[in-house]
Amino acid sequence: MSLRADIAGLAQRVKERDCRAVARIISALENDPEFAPQFIPALSPFWTKRPRLGITGSPGVGKSTVINGLVKLLRARGQRVGVVAVDPTSPFSGGAILGDRVRMQGVQNDEGVFIRSMGSRGSLGGLSVATASVVRVLESFGSDFILVETVGMGQTGFDIADIADTVALLLSPESGDGVQTMKAGVMEIADMYVVNKADRPGAEGLMIEIESLLGMIEDRLRWKPPVFAAKALEGEGMERILEVFAEHQNFLREHEQYEQRRLRQVTSEIRFIVESQIRRRSFASPDFRQRIDDLAGKVMAAEMDAYTAAAIIMKELPERLGEGQSQ
Amino acid sequence: MSLRADIAGLAQRVKERDCRAVARIISALENDPEFAPQFIPALSPFWTKRPRLGITGSPGVGKSTVINGLVKLLRARGQRVGVVAVDPTSPFSGGAILGDRVRMQGVQNDEGVFIRSMGSRGSLGGLSVATASVVRVLESFGSDFILVETVGMGQTGFDIADIADTVALLLSPESGDGVQTMKAGVMEIADMYVVNKADRPGAEGLMIEIESLLGMIEDRLRWKPPVFAAKALEGEGMERILEVFAEHQNFLREHEQYEQRRLRQVTSEIRFIVESQIRRRSFASPDFRQRIDDLAGKVMAAEMDAYTAAAIIMKELPERLGEGQSQ
Repeated sequence: MSLRADIAGLAQRVKERDCRAVARIISALENDPEFAPQFIPALSPFWTKRPRLGITGSPGVGKSTVINGLVKLLRARGQRVGVVAVDPTSPFSGGAILGDRVRMQGVQNDEGVFIRSMGSRGSLGGLSVATASVVRVLESFGSDFILVETVGMGQTGFDIADIADTVALLLSPESGDGVQTMKAGVMEIADMYVVNKADRPGAEGLMIEIESLLGMIEDRLRWKPPVFAAKALEGEGMERILEVFAEHQNFLREHEQYEQRRLRQVTSEIRFIVESQIRRRSFASPDFRQRIDDLAGKVMAAEMDAYTAAAIIMKELPERLGEGQSQ
Repeated sequence: MSLRADIAGLAQRVKERDCRAVARIISALENDPEFAPQFIPALSPFWTKRPRLGITGSPGVGKSTVINGLVKLLRARGQRVGVVAVDPTSPFSGGAILGDRVRMQGVQNDEGVFIRSMGSRGSLGGLSVATASVVRVLESFGSDFILVETVGMGQTGFDIADIADTVALLLSPESGDGVQTMKAGVMEIADMYVVNKADRPGAEGLMIEIESLLGMIEDRLRWKPPVFAAKALEGEGMERILEVFAEHQNFLREHEQYEQRRLRQVTSEIRFIVESQIRRRSFASPDFRQRIDDLAGKVMAAEMDAYTAAAIIMKELPERLGEGQSQ
């Protein structure tokens, strides 16, 4: 990739709102792990943090329709919007996702909107740390408001709360999203609960169920996340989402929690960059994997056990991690 | 903990079927990361691999009832059974889980059954690598058959297929477990699909849905996972699960895939032991976290960016990982 040759020039083109350059940069951030460490520092002078709203929920709850509605609303207010959507890569959900993308195209010819779908690369619907870099590019590109969409907690541990300032959890009575079957951890991170498709049977029951769960944890949380209904297809409830977003941001500032959240985001980002670099120099490297396979063969042959094999690997690791650190 | 003082004696007590010793050993495997590297090698002489069946599925599909049924069946055949159940630790699902445990107590006073619930410790329902050690203890303890229960793919990446020889995915028409809403990756790992609560509405539709998905991936898979109905509360379908287990094991042996599966299990175990040791010497260590916090403060103050901070951490890492390696 020739992108790496002129890092400073590239950063300049982001500032100048060169759409094609931005698309290529985002691809490089996704695909070339060596690109971000060079590019993101060069982008720093042009970067300003923008309001970021995360939209999460199971497949089928209507995330794309909600984002569509929010984009229209924000555009009507004269805001430029950046959208990052993280797609699961399972072959099983391929169809549904394509459908979602098509529905989003209504806003895609608008110059004030930049929508980017990212693969989730084996993180099972979670965000990769590259998502944080992509958001930073969209912010430097002049977006006034950032929307991040994900299907929920992934395997990487880098999650929507590590990027978004406020997280809206979307549920719907039809998705079988009984609160009991929610993935553990998803309920806890939401700053608002939006029950979409509120005209379908079961919507009221679902809202009561969420409210009663929130009652249980009231003491633990300082911000009490509102629970409200929406009908995204008709545009109902979209204004309320933006209102609650603003209220939540004010609350964080008044209670001096805003800086805390930001620090959490930065800490997570550093942590996950480090983790992915460790992985690249160990488990993602073919000769490291070969070494594990060789030792696994000895465990199979009952010549040693897995812990002894692991101890051998750990002894060799510092040297491996030190390699390739030219800076 | 005095356990570490007499490792060889402890291993001997497992062989002698000392229940209390086994319970303490399992607690130590869960809680003391330094224990397994010492104890598991000492246990090796007493260890024989046993048949392992994994039962996975969303909360509410009836996993505990199925395990209850399988245990009774295996006991009637004179087999000693070891059960490892991984509980999610979310406060939201605490109630349901307690209920499950109570229902299981019908078999808990039987000396031929050893049931152990493990916390999932932030891995959101997944297995930790300690589970592999616990299974090994139950095998050395004289269990003839091992059942492993989990709510599905977790965040650690160490999953049921890394421990079990055959994986049964439980679904039910009522859990809202439309195949569309399944977590990506869960559908792919199953060696059989059991539609529980088969007398409830929607069961037939769910089976057709699964069959048609399996039709799509037929070429990719060499073993065609059977799809069948069960009513675990009435004991229906439990024999079939054990039959399919045996068929699948035979299939793997006939197609020379059995060794391949075992090698995959061993490789995963080594890999996840190494990963957890890396984590312990880095992200789990207070001074490492302090270092990240300090650098995050500089990123907040715009003195550097996250990638520069990560590069500093990476330079310091080899020395950190080398520390404390006394062997």
